[in-house]
Amino acid sequence: MRILIAPNAFKGSLSAAEVAATISRAFHDVEPNFDCCTLPVADGGDGTAEVLAAGLNARKQLVEVENALGRKIKAPLYLSEDGTAFIELADAAGLKLLSTRELAPLQTHTYGVGELIRKALDYSCTRIVLGIGGSATLDVGIGALRALGVRFKDASGGEVRGGGGALNRIASLDVSEMDKRLNEVQIQIACDVDNYLLGERGAAHVFGPQKGANPFQVELLEKNHRKFTQLVKQTLDVDMGEFLYGGAAGGISAGLKAFCGAELLPGADLVLDSLDFDRKLKDCDLVITGEGRIDEQSIHGKAPYVVAQRAKFAGKKVIGLAGSFESLDNSPFDALFSIPNGPVALEEVMENAEKYLYYSAKELGKLIKALS
Amino acid sequence: MRILIAPNAFKGSLSAAEVAATISRAFHDVEPNFDCCTLPVADGGDGTAEVLAAGLNARKQLVEVENALGRKIKAPLYLSEDGTAFIELADAAGLKLLSTRELAPLQTHTYGVGELIRKALDYSCTRIVLGIGGSATLDVGIGALRALGVRFKDASGGEVRGGGGALNRIASLDVSEMDKRLNEVQIQIACDVDNYLLGERGAAHVFGPQKGANPFQVELLEKNHRKFTQLVKQTLDVDMGEFLYGGAAGGISAGLKAFCGAELLPGADLVLDSLDFDRKLKDCDLVITGEGRIDEQSIHGKAPYVVAQRAKFAGKKVIGLAGSFESLDNSPFDALFSIPNGPVALEEVMENAEKYLYYSAKELGKLIKALS
Repeated sequence: MRILIAPNAFKGSLSAAEVAATISRAFHDVEPNFDCCTLPVADGGDGTAEVLAAGLNARKQLVEVENALGRKIKAPLYLSEDGTAFIELADAAGLKLLSTRELAPLQTHTYGVGELIRKALDYSCTRIVLGIGGSATLDVGIGALRALGVRFKDASGGEVRGGGGALNRIASLDVSEMDKRLNEVQIQIACDVDNYLLGERGAAHVFGPQKGANPFQVELLEKNHRKFTQLVKQTLDVDMGEFLYGGAAGGISAGLKAFCGAELLPGADLVLDSLDFDRKLKDCDLVITGEGRIDEQSIHGKAPYVVAQRAKFAGKKVIGLAGSFESLDNSPFDALFSIPNGPVALEEVMENAEKYLYYSAKELGKLIKALS
Repeated sequence: MRILIAPNAFKGSLSAAEVAATISRAFHDVEPNFDCCTLPVADGGDGTAEVLAAGLNARKQLVEVENALGRKIKAPLYLSEDGTAFIELADAAGLKLLSTRELAPLQTHTYGVGELIRKALDYSCTRIVLGIGGSATLDVGIGALRALGVRFKDASGGEVRGGGGALNRIASLDVSEMDKRLNEVQIQIACDVDNYLLGERGAAHVFGPQKGANPFQVELLEKNHRKFTQLVKQTLDVDMGEFLYGGAAGGISAGLKAFCGAELLPGADLVLDSLDFDRKLKDCDLVITGEGRIDEQSIHGKAPYVVAQRAKFAGKKVIGLAGSFESLDNSPFDALFSIPNGPVALEEVMENAEKYLYYSAKELGKLIKALS
């Protein structure tokens, strides 16, 4: 039996690669004749670039860039043989690089992301794939755009730097010195949420609080996003407010689409297509996917759900393995399977996730062996 | 696909019948074409008589008897058409009928169990099956034997009543007025533990504490059990200390074997044989069994383990569904499956056991449907 093991990360405990390897090891220990193929997946959330890089044998190159508060850090750029660069926004402008006390939703910016894009252009990449989960920023991408040569000026002609809090000072913008190499490169953004930039379901209102914004700052950022959207519309004749996925990662998706023609794509589909998932699916009899949690939220484009949909469409059986799950009716999963072997605390499972995953995967492997 | 659903009770939450019905309902909800046959099982633990009664369509008759402290209560006697009576020791002399403050390991007795046996004889039963789990007593069955006509006398010829604490006052015994009908009836005791009556692994030492005995009382009871064993040996020429299972239920198993020729049998085998398990096994493709917990302890004759062994021996696939489990290598289970759908507290699962069981059984049913 050929089994395709294509899980997402178990956020906070195991990377997608670790999850896939653990399941594969357990299955092999149950039945050496199981022909297991591992294909860790992602959906635009933090870790997407690493998953793509591993799946496509890209080499990792460390680049010195600014983090969201302007400190110099080393961030990875993944370069594959076919001229694609994979970039993880969170490696430059991520929440994970700041302490809770450092959260500064008006100041944080994406300049480092622009530096990574510029470095990819230095390597003559023809395609850049950007994973944007876990951002600390709400700057609509002006940081990244500054690094790529766009100039934002205040009413008296001085250059505006900074984050989302500075957007209202921008009176004009100048793209004449924008990096010309951007015209030749395809930029694809793997979006993990499908929010628009503005409004009650927009970047400031929905994601501002988790980046440290208080209600006053949320309103201020929303106002700033609106004002900047207006300016871009007048100057470039594109309406960032109309972009599906434009609210992802504090609006950098909208900014890079408006200024650089980036494609905003549902993350799971972009990842699965990049990894040639559908072809690998053809050869297998059964698909195992998984995530820390599978529930109603999974329907909104989470990797395991899209894996299950594609598997079902191809007529394959698909089982979801999760730290925890809620039963989903009419879902593409044939069945869900949880990793705890009994009543146990969340902390215990998260701290020993590999052990719990291994043992549950072993029982699942035994079930597969017994029933098929 | 024909599925035999043969679980034990989930102790403290669901009876074996409830477990079987819940799994069957879940499977039916997944696939109406599953041909599910339910056969709740037991292994001598509290609830065994009810399981046997249900499986063999025995009718329930309430009988007024004494509980372990001599209070009048109503206890069920189950009477089947073929002349078998099923009796649950714990319904008369069980821990469940006493409050923690009432535990009195020297006083508690099995008189009510003897009354139930006598009532079964009144109904001309030819076979009596006694489940003995959950007893509050350590009287080696003298209570039951008194009810059946055996007279225990002290040194001055006065009758000795009471429990394990009174055994040392017995100087002689008289079986001349023992109920003659006992000669014609087969008594089978479904034993849930395989301890001997005496010694470090005997009734007083191992089970005394859970019946409220302090260390001093444990030693006293052990001494009393030895003295009574000696007297029985001298009088009846049988050595209760040599009976395998003789330490079950405070020694009533040893007493009934010595005085009435009761057969002491491993509970699970007695139950499965009574329920014609092996024949029902033949017709099915897959066996589902289960218990609150499945682990190394299960090897010692727990119902799900014996179900799994027999299923394996018959070449059937068998899956164990448990509130919690430890993986068992080289066990007869093809696989084990736990009911929590994620990290959750034991109390939560026990309080909502039916809900957790239903949802996990549904996922298991989906797996079976997908894989077979």
